[in-house]
Formats: sequence, C-alpha cells, structure tokens
Amino acid sequence: MRVNLERIKKDIQELAEIGKNPRDNGIYRVAFSDADMQGKECLCERMRSAGLNPEMDGALNVSAVLSGRNDQPRLLIGSHIDTVPCAGALDGTLGVVVGLECLRCLAEAGVTLDRSVELIAFSDEEGRFGGMFGSQSVAGQMNPATIMNRKDLHGVTLQSEMARHGHDVRLALDAARDLDSISHYLELHIEQGPVLDRSKKSVGIVDEITGLFTWAIRFKGEANHAGTTPMEMRHDALMGLADFAHEIPRILDENGTARSRATIGKAEILPGAVNTVPARVDFSLDVRDTNADVLDDLSHACRKALSAIARRRGLMFEFERISYLEPVQCCTELVSRLQGNAEALNLDYATMPSGAAHDAQIIGSLIPVGMIFVPSKNGQSHSPAEWTAWSDIEDGANLLLRTVLTMLCQNSQNPVANGF
Amino acid sequence: MRVNLERIKKDIQELAEIGKNPRDNGIYRVAFSDADMQGKECLCERMRSAGLNPEMDGALNVSAVLSGRNDQPRLLIGSHIDTVPCAGALDGTLGVVVGLECLRCLAEAGVTLDRSVELIAFSDEEGRFGGMFGSQSVAGQMNPATIMNRKDLHGVTLQSEMARHGHDVRLALDAARDLDSISHYLELHIEQGPVLDRSKKSVGIVDEITGLFTWAIRFKGEANHAGTTPMEMRHDALMGLADFAHEIPRILDENGTARSRATIGKAEILPGAVNTVPARVDFSLDVRDTNADVLDDLSHACRKALSAIARRRGLMFEFERISYLEPVQCCTELVSRLQGNAEALNLDYATMPSGAAHDAQIIGSLIPVGMIFVPSKNGQSHSPAEWTAWSDIEDGANLLLRTVLTMLCQNSQNPVANGF
Repeated sequence: MRVNLERIKKDIQELAEIGKNPRDNGIYRVAFSDADMQGKECLCERMRSAGLNPEMDGALNVSAVLSGRNDQPRLLIGSHIDTVPCAGALDGTLGVVVGLECLRCLAEAGVTLDRSVELIAFSDEEGRFGGMFGSQSVAGQMNPATIMNRKDLHGVTLQSEMARHGHDVRLALDAARDLDSISHYLELHIEQGPVLDRSKKSVGIVDEITGLFTWAIRFKGEANHAGTTPMEMRHDALMGLADFAHEIPRILDENGTARSRATIGKAEILPGAVNTVPARVDFSLDVRDTNADVLDDLSHACRKALSAIARRRGLMFEFERISYLEPVQCCTELVSRLQGNAEALNLDYATMPSGAAHDAQIIGSLIPVGMIFVPSKNGQSHSPAEWTAWSDIEDGANLLLRTVLTMLCQNSQNPVANGF
Repeated sequence: MRVNLERIKKDIQELAEIGKNPRDNGIYRVAFSDADMQGKECLCERMRSAGLNPEMDGALNVSAVLSGRNDQPRLLIGSHIDTVPCAGALDGTLGVVVGLECLRCLAEAGVTLDRSVELIAFSDEEGRFGGMFGSQSVAGQMNPATIMNRKDLHGVTLQSEMARHGHDVRLALDAARDLDSISHYLELHIEQGPVLDRSKKSVGIVDEITGLFTWAIRFKGEANHAGTTPMEMRHDALMGLADFAHEIPRILDENGTARSRATIGKAEILPGAVNTVPARVDFSLDVRDTNADVLDDLSHACRKALSAIARRRGLMFEFERISYLEPVQCCTELVSRLQGNAEALNLDYATMPSGAAHDAQIIGSLIPVGMIFVPSKNGQSHSPAEWTAWSDIEDGANLLLRTVLTMLCQNSQNPVANGF
C-alpha cells in the first residue's frame, strides 16, 4: 500500500491558496483569522470527500476518526494548519494532509484496523495567541485564567476572536481528552532546519524534541561621549553583549552536547547614537538542548558568565526567564518501529533531534510520541521559500502510512499489512 | 584684574531659563528655534548693558567688538549658545558668557588694547541643521548649495526656519570673514568628558582637537531557526559584530595612540526575533584621533578586520564612510602662553586633547586657535546633569581674561597687564 502523491499535491496546493497574499506569495493563515477558519472548513470538506466525519472540539481542533475494531486507545496522528504571517505551504499543513492521505489509503483498501486512528489538526500551534493552544487543550493543560488571558500582539483577545466566529473560548476546556483513550501520537513535519537537506537524507526519525529556555537580559553601563571618554573610563554595555556572545561557544563546549544551541536573536542598543558609548543593551537568549539536566547546566554557566562580564566591565546586569519548555524523549518503541519501517522501505534516513517545538512536545509530555521529518530545502521555513522535494514528501508519507498500518494491524497474516 | 564670578553666574542662570522645559529641567534651545532667537536677543541685551554694540551677521552669529588701538587683526573669542534638545546650562553658553565677562572687565578697567577683541556666539554649533553652521560661514566654507540643502531631522529646511524669523539664509554667505582680519581664535568650553574631573584639575589646555571618521557598516548572514540550525551551520551576523567589537582594543593598541577612541554606538539586529539567528546587523563606527595619519592607519586596520571576520563567518560586509573631520593642532604659541598664564595664576591644569568637535575645529583649520577646558562633573554633558564647579569656572575665566590681556597689551609696562 502506497500513498497517492498526486492527492497530497492537490491538497497542499488547495490549502496554499487560502490566506495567500499575492504581493509576497506568503500565506497568512494566523490562528482564528478568517483565512484560518476557511482552512479548517476546507479541511473538513476534504475529510468528508474521503468518507470521514469531521468534528471540531471546543479549541476548534479539527479531527476525524477512521474506526477500527476497538475505538480506544486510538492512534492519534496530525499536526496543524495555522501559519505564521507570510508562511510557506508546508509547515504543519503537510503533516495534516499526509495524515489525511493515510486515512484515505486505509479506507480505500478496506483494511480492518485493530484500533481506531484519528487525524487531528491542532489550533494555534504557531503562537498568535501564545501557541500550542489546541494541543494544550487536548492535553488538559488549560484553565479558565490562561484561556481568558490570551491576547495577540495587537491586543486582540483569543476570547473575542473566537466569539467573532461564533465560538465560546471557555469550551476549549472541554477539549481535554482522557489520555488513556490515546495510545500514541505520530506527527510528520518539515524539519525547518538544514540537517537532512545537507546530508541528502529523505526522512528524519526524531528521537528527542528539544527543550529550551529563553531569557531577556539587560546590561546597564554608562552613556558617555564617544570622543571625550578615554577607552579605559568606559562602561560600554555593548562590549558586555560582545563578551557574552563570545562566551557562548565556550559555554556550549563545556556544558552542552552536539544537540545544544544558543542564540542571541534580538538586541536593542540604547541610547543608540553614533557618538555615544552605549549605556544599555537589552537582548534575548534562546538556549536549547534535548536533556533537561544539560539545560540546567547551560543556564548555570550563562548566569556565571553574565555575572563575570558585568563585574569585569563595571556594568549592572539583570535577566528574566521568559519561557521554559521541558525536553521530550520520543517513545523508543516508536522510534525503533519507524527505523525498521524506513529500512523496509529502503529509505535513506537519519535519526535526529527536533530543534523546534511542535504539538508533539505538548502531547509527548503525557503519552508516547513519534515524529517523522522531511527535509527543508536550504533549511528554510516560516517563509514563502519553504519547500520540500515531492519525492521526499512521498517517502515520508509512505513511512507514516506503513507505520500506522503496522501499528494497527498487529496480525502479521494481514495480507495488506504485508503488501508493501 | 579678575573676573566677577557673580556676573558670570547671573548670565548663566538667565540664559538657562530660556528654552527650559520644567518637566525634565532640560534646555531646548536648538538652532533657530524661538528659544534660540530669544537667547540671541538676551545676549545682545547683555552686550549692550556692558556698553558694547552687538551685531548679527548673515548666519545670525551674534558678536560685539571691544576696540583696541588697531582694529585688525582682531583676537576672536567665543563659542555658541544653541543647545542640543534637553541640554544642560554650560555647553557653549559658558564660553560666550565668560568671553562677555572678559570684555566687561577690560572695558571697566579702561585698559588700552593694542588690537581689538571680538566676542562671537556662533549659530547652530550643535547640529540641528548639520552643525558648525556659524563658524563654517565665518570661515567661508559655505556655498549656495550647502546652505539651501540643510534640513533638520523633521525635514524643516534651514531656509524656511530663518525666513520664519525674517532672515534670508543666502545672506549667510556674506558672513565669511577675511581671515587676515583675525589673528587668533580662543574658546573656553566645558570638557564634556571625565578626564579633568577624575584627575581633579581645574582647567585643561587643549593642544589638539581630535579628527574622526564615522562609518555605517553592515554584516549580512542568514536568518535561520534558532532551534533547528546546528551552531556550525550558522552565518550569524551578530557574531560578526561581536568579533569586530572585540577587535577594537587590538586595533587601537596596534595602530592608535593614547588619544585614539573607537565606539560602536548604534546597532540594529535583523530580523530581531528571539528564535531566529540574526541575518543582518547594521552598526555605526566612530573612530577618533588627533593625528590624520593615525586615523588613516586605524581606518585601514578596521577594514582588514571587517573583511577577515566576514570571510571567517561566511558573512557579506559593506561599509560607507558617513563623515570625516580632519584633526586640528592648536597654535603652539597659544598653548605655551595659556600654560604660562595658568602657572602664573597658580592653577592646577592639564594639557590635553579635545575629543569632541568644536567651532574651534572649523576656525582652527584656517587660523591659529587655542582652547581652555573646564571640568565636567562625572564627564556628563548634553544633559540637565551637566555641571562644573563655580570655582573651576572662575579659574577658567581668569585664565581666559589673563590670556586676552597679555595678548593684547604687549607693553609689559602696562600696569593693568601686570596687575595680577
């Protein structure tokens, strides 16, 4: 049994038109916008065409079940169809479209599944209202306060945006599932990084999903005249930033792993005049690793480095933890199964971490998860340049299909399960 | 003969009220604003009270002459009374007020001067319309195009702003002096740096005025996901900035002097997202030294460092020279005379460079100049915190008075000249 690549193409292309801005070719399907709601409607329509019965829960997650002999515990597969502003066609959407194709193939083949499989498209993964809203709702991680407080960058509340479409945000609490009702969660996603593309692998099998902490850091020095202040009398906040940027490789070498990342993505230099020694630098730090203890060590080392730099340069420093996300280990049994299936399909795969956060990270803190990556051309994502070769998409989709099939047709005598 | 500190205080305090914003205690007397024009009027009034006859040239420089036996070549003394927004009370204004006090003392004492002395307050030193407008006009460095093109940050033209007060900007061309008509220019100014304050000297005698170049520099790398992009696959533009910031001490040590300064005062990091490796950094570089050859060497070394960093990090780089100001050597005879007078007055002085640009730099490219500095408390300037102890102001003023007197009363038999 193989996926039909033409149907995947058609679904991707159809969804890519929803929210597309012809000026920059970017897709603007941010969570709960009109385009996002239209995307959900389109997905429901595609599900119906596949003979499935779409449903929408209180968090506006769209899902459909292909029933097996037992309804529970179900295998859950999916991803999300909301986008960042000016997105490409594949981030999230590919996982949903490929999942739908898997259900279509299984339904058409008339396979009798041991258990049901459910396809889900989670709401607001990308973060218009904070991100992971749909998967957090399913995982039962929401409460009335967190729901009512969510706002987008422009101050629009999640509540008002959902009300605009006739939905009551408080019903998102009802989206929480009994987690015993789900056996595993499987997600196919583009890598959003350069590793598979550079190494010319067609699929990645994720063994760990990175955890991260982000800090907002401030160095405070003294604004001084660039001409009249001798170099040795300065308290230059920008030099503090430069020092810290240069400590990062050492901190990673001493405390991190090959999977560690640290990034200063944002920095504001004040007062920001050509002829004034910078008095203040506000900057962000984003540190990731797939091991929580390593993250702790990295955090400790960063704090020591910042404090030493501040002392050496005569600066003040302060920092605030903005976010923390626990790393998640994928289910080892699922990883082995995915590896075995990739070998059976003769795919050139890599076992690798996920450096980005995904709905699988939320679900994975509660139930066993697995993830399949397909390559991102030049590592590009969150941009109209985001792309994956159709042949790689086909490989990833066949790996998902074979994995669903082998998980849900335990009977090795099943002729279809062995029909690869 | 000594200055009367009370009169200096009174003039400083009177001018400090003009353009003062009670909310932040800052003085807003930016060039050709209503407050600046009111300041010019106030100065004319103070000149008249001293028995002088104020004049305004085509650049709206305010001046008054105390006549000697010969009118030319005159000794020119002065500074400016325009301010930056939210200024303190002393920058520029002190030099004008002290100059006025010197003329008052000389007039009251009935000294017969060998040559005339002229006090001048130059227009727009601080740069609302580019800076040094008054001194450049006197130096004959303006032409119709440069005059007509000058605009402030809000797009207001110099022409319209002068017309608003009933003046024709083109007449600024008529402000050019025959430079043979001026023998020397002497300016007293606050240091605007920490050197005198830290070393507890009451006056500084400037031997060189720094030259400078400023560059706008850009490093271009690649925007990548902070989680999915391994450290070794990045082209992080911010790391290029950090590298260059750390090359600065080496570049100064290898190519500069104790008078060299280099400052990165401004930097913009793009796209500027916490979870994105910076693709681009635009930053400024301000490099100063009192020797033009040293400035050349520094510029060459900076270019080599930028190019090496770009190569090493896989970045593109480009830079543009935004400004260049030639260093000026003060007149050695004037410096010696100021030193001798400081010793005669028993002042604890330092001979030092000026790290900031002044009207003296413009005039000094054409005729011999000298400058007296008084300490800036904590090196602060361009802020309401700007201050100098009255006793230091008195010392600096007496040094200026004695220097004017000894320069213009060559007859050592003159009882007043020897009456210190």
